[in-house]
This record gives sequence, structure tokens and C-alpha cells, in this order.
Amino acid sequence: MSSQNPSDPDAMFERVRASFARQGMMLHLGARLLRVEPGLCELALPYSDKVTQQQGGFHGGAIGALADIAGGYAALTVCPEGSEVTTVEYKINFLNAFQGGELRAIGRVVKAGRRVIVTTAEVLHYGDGQRRDCAIMQQTLAPVTKTY
Amino acid sequence: MSSQNPSDPDAMFERVRASFARQGMMLHLGARLLRVEPGLCELALPYSDKVTQQQGGFHGGAIGALADIAGGYAALTVCPEGSEVTTVEYKINFLNAFQGGELRAIGRVVKAGRRVIVTTAEVLHYGDGQRRDCAIMQQTLAPVTKTY
Amino acid sequence: MSSQNPSDPDAMFERVRASFARQGMMLHLGARLLRVEPGLCELALPYSDKVTQQQGGFHGGAIGALADIAGGYAALTVCPEGSEVTTVEYKINFLNAFQGGELRAIGRVVKAGRRVIVTTAEVLHYGDGQRRDCAIMQQTLAPVTKTY
Amino acid sequence: MSSQNPSDPDAMFERVRASFARQGMMLHLGARLLRVEPGLCELALPYSDKVTQQQGGFHGGAIGALADIAGGYAALTVCPEGSEVTTVEYKINFLNAFQGGELRAIGRVVKAGRRVIVTTAEVLHYGDGQRRDCAIMQQTLAPVTKTY
Repeated sequence: MSSQNPSDPDAMFERVRASFARQGMMLHLGARLLRVEPGLCELALPYSDKVTQQQGGFHGGAIGALADIAGGYAALTVCPEGSEVTTVEYKINFLNAFQGGELRAIGRVVKAGRRVIVTTAEVLHYGDGQRRDCAIMQQTLAPVTKTY
Repeated sequence: MSSQNPSDPDAMFERVRASFARQGMMLHLGARLLRVEPGLCELALPYSDKVTQQQGGFHGGAIGALADIAGGYAALTVCPEGSEVTTVEYKINFLNAFQGGELRAIGRVVKAGRRVIVTTAEVLHYGDGQRRDCAIMQQTLAPVTKTY
Repeated sequence: MSSQNPSDPDAMFERVRASFARQGMMLHLGARLLRVEPGLCELALPYSDKVTQQQGGFHGGAIGALADIAGGYAALTVCPEGSEVTTVEYKINFLNAFQGGELRAIGRVVKAGRRVIVTTAEVLHYGDGQRRDCAIMQQTLAPVTKTY
Repeated sequence: MSSQNPSDPDAMFERVRASFARQGMMLHLGARLLRVEPGLCELALPYSDKVTQQQGGFHGGAIGALADIAGGYAALTVCPEGSEVTTVEYKINFLNAFQGGELRAIGRVVKAGRRVIVTTAEVLHYGDGQRRDCAIMQQTLAPVTKTY
């Protein structure tokens, strides 16, 4: 028996935190969970040599992964308990390249369908006292039954 | 003075290898460069706890990064010496999830424009003596002047 | 009672033809159904002033519509009788612009899942005795119950 | 000699209107130009049998074309006089299907680069006294020299 209330903010954060803690890649790259709200999730990824490409900037792969997960956890907040989400596809546009500082990705649910969830994510760069656009993503996910 | 011939297979491989060796993230995740041909690049990424998501499978972010780079280096092979490529955007569909084994991404140039290069990539999973579809990607890149 | 066999080529063509005949927009633009095979559909769209953009070339919207439908009918061929498909999303890259002649779009199923079908389509231009690349598309569809 | 000022709202609207008037397909489908602002363009498309798919709803191809053009003209407003824009690629998610009423697409510039312009568009449905989400798009364009 579960006493969790889907509209309980603490339970929602805990649910996302528990899943996030199982993401080997994200932990390895140094990503942190910042914010979970109904239909929204925000993550941070600090600059390090684990996330660079050949010119020393943040790797597109790291940016894409961060956006993918921010969208995915935003989607998870609108799914019933006992379900997970799986990414069907995403599309990302890279707007500006950055070195140093920190990336933040904010995922937002656009449509919470029973079979398909659509999200967008914006990735921002924080550094030198400025906040600038890094990337935007549009994503499709499917709710699936949790298997672990 | 450079004696490199763009159609020299060894020079082409060396050019991609030199750039790949500067990719902190890819080296960190354990990716390897397998094959470079005019308009084509193949990479491998073995399974490890550095590339997993919450269910223990390959992380979508790792799959996306691998596809992005395979497409990017395929594009580099059709650019003049002294240029780099930058990813404008990509879109990836995840077809099947896998645990263990190894991923291979093959990037191919579809259009080599002066201002825009279009590629596709397929990501395959090798494991249990089988080869299966993992993901497909469609990507846009822009040639830029090399700055390092 | 239906005597249709899903592997019957004539029944498959007829099923797609019947749906195509209900597409007001496609008929209006002059599109024709050319070929239906398991997991494949080919359509043609001749040049006319109904499909042009401001420079007199084929409109991106017409190219996108043709690719969308070619992928959609390819998907329909792998669905059980009594179902329709609905486009969840697609992404299209325009490779070259063309005036005159005819476009052909070939849609192909990449993954036939129970809940999600993934396709690609290539759009080619036929004119001046040549066949040239016009666009490539990557698409996600969902099978739905037929409602008409 | 041109007295046009890029920040002159009337000149900006006139520039988009003149290009729009040359779009055979859009005129044919019955689309109207509603609003032009720096970095923004809004279009309308009323329901008719010229824009339907097999179930009688608005055709994905018509929705895609409308979003493509809204994004394209938003991009045009940030380009210098004498230039056009060409769509490199777009990706569209369909959120809900509609019959009757009218679609409105609003395109917005996200990044106005010298070589690449990135936009988003939202497509809304107006009908039965309600405004509902129909589709969202993410798009890449390139400025080109006007050739007519």
C-alpha cells in the first residue's frame, strides 16, 4: 500500500531523485537534480574534462543527454506511480558553444497523452555572471511499466 | 607546408583520429574510432557503468552522442583541410534498448553543401552473437574554420 | 467477414488506395499512389502552381506532406486490418530545390512496434531526364483504431 | 533608392506580404497573413476540403506547411533587405487533431545567426469558442540572396 499522493511535491521530487540516482552516466558526468514540479524538471551539469569535445567546449552529446533527461523527468511527473518513461525520439538545435561554467536544462511537458508525452527543453549556460541560450529540444516519450 | 591529399585514406583517417583524440567525453566513455572513408565514419562504444540509464541499459544520451559524432566525422571527411564541423542540430529515434555488449554507430554524408552538410547515422547493437537496430539519426552540420 | 489476407499484395494496395482516395489535400494537389509493398509506399506529385513557394519551386510544405504520407502508408502496411496510423511527429531535411518535373516520395518502415512505428522517407525529383535528391525524412507514427 | 527602414513596421509587413503573395500553395489552400513583428509571424488557415486527410481532419501536411512558413517569415524579419530565407529542416510534433474552425501558426525566432536562423512555431486551433494546441515545430533556416 502506498500513501504517496501524486500532487505531493516531496513525493514527486523523491521519485525523480530515486530514478536519477540510478543513472550511471549522469552521475559519472557530474549532473545534479535541481528542481522538480508538476510537468517540469531542471538539471545542472558543471564543466569538466568529462564533458568536452575537440575544441574544449561542452560536448553536444552531453548537452543532448542533459536535455533528454530533463524532458524525461518532466514527463515522469505526469505519469502514474509505478510507471517509467522511455524516450521515443528527440530533436535538438545547438544555439551557442560554451566553455567553463555550468549548463542548466529545463524540461517542460507540452502534452501529457496516455500513450505519448511531448516535451520541450531549453538548455542555458551560466558563466561569467551571464545566462545565455545553449540549445533547445523537442521530444517524444512513451510511458512504460516500471521493471525494477 | 602540407603534402596531404584529401583522397589519401591514411591522411583522412589521421585527421579524424587527431580530432577524436581531443574529445574528452568520448575517451572518458570508452568510445573507439573504427573506420573512416570518404563520407563515412564508424565508432564503437562498449557497455560500462559510465553509459547506463536508470534501468541499466545504454543511456539515450550516450547513444545520441555516439551518433552525433559518427555523423560529424563523416561530414569532416568531405570538408577541406583546415576546417572543422559544428553540429547545427540532430534528431534521433530510439528503436530498441540494450544492456551489455557494444554499440556501433555508422555516420554517412547525404549532402555535402558548401554551407550545410546533411548526414544520417545508424546505431547498431552487437551482443549475444547478434547485430540489432538501436537508433537512427538525421543531422545538419556547418563547416567552420578550425580554431585550434 | 473479411477474407483479406495481410500478405495479399492486391488487398494491401487496395487498403492504401481506399484511404488515399479520402485525402482531400493530396488529391487536390494532384498526388498519385504508385507502389505499395510490405513496409513500403511510393507516391508522386507533379509540379503545378498549387505546390509552389515564392521563388516558383516546389513548396517545402508540399514536400513535407508527400514525405509524411509516404511514411504513413508504409506504416499502414504493417498494421493489422481495422487500424489506421496517426503521425506523432516527423523531421525533414531539404536537400535541393526544384522547379518543374515531378517529385517521388518513398516511405519505408524501420521499426514496426506495437505502440510506435518508425519510418524514413526519401523524396526524389524527376526532371530533365535526371533523378536527384530532394529531401529526407524521419518519422514516428502510432497505430490507432479506424474510426470511419 | 530605397527608403525602407528595417525597424519600420509597415515596411516589414509589406516585405513579408509581397513574398507571401507569391506562394502559390498557401494562397491555394486559403492561408492568410495575420501579423508580422520583429522576429515573429502569424498565419491563419481556415478548414476546407483542400486541407483534409482521410479522417476529415486537418492534414498533417497542411499543418506542417503552415508552421514552416510562419517560422520562415519570422526568420525573414531578422534578415537584411535583399535576402530571402530557405528552410534547411524542421521537426514537428502533432498534439491534437481537429476538424472545422481555423488553424493559427505563430513563428518566433530563437537565434538569428549570420549563417543559420533557428525558430520555433506553435500551431493552435480556433473553433467552438476555444483555443487548443495543435502542433509545435522547431526549425533551421539559412539566409540566401533573393533571386527574383
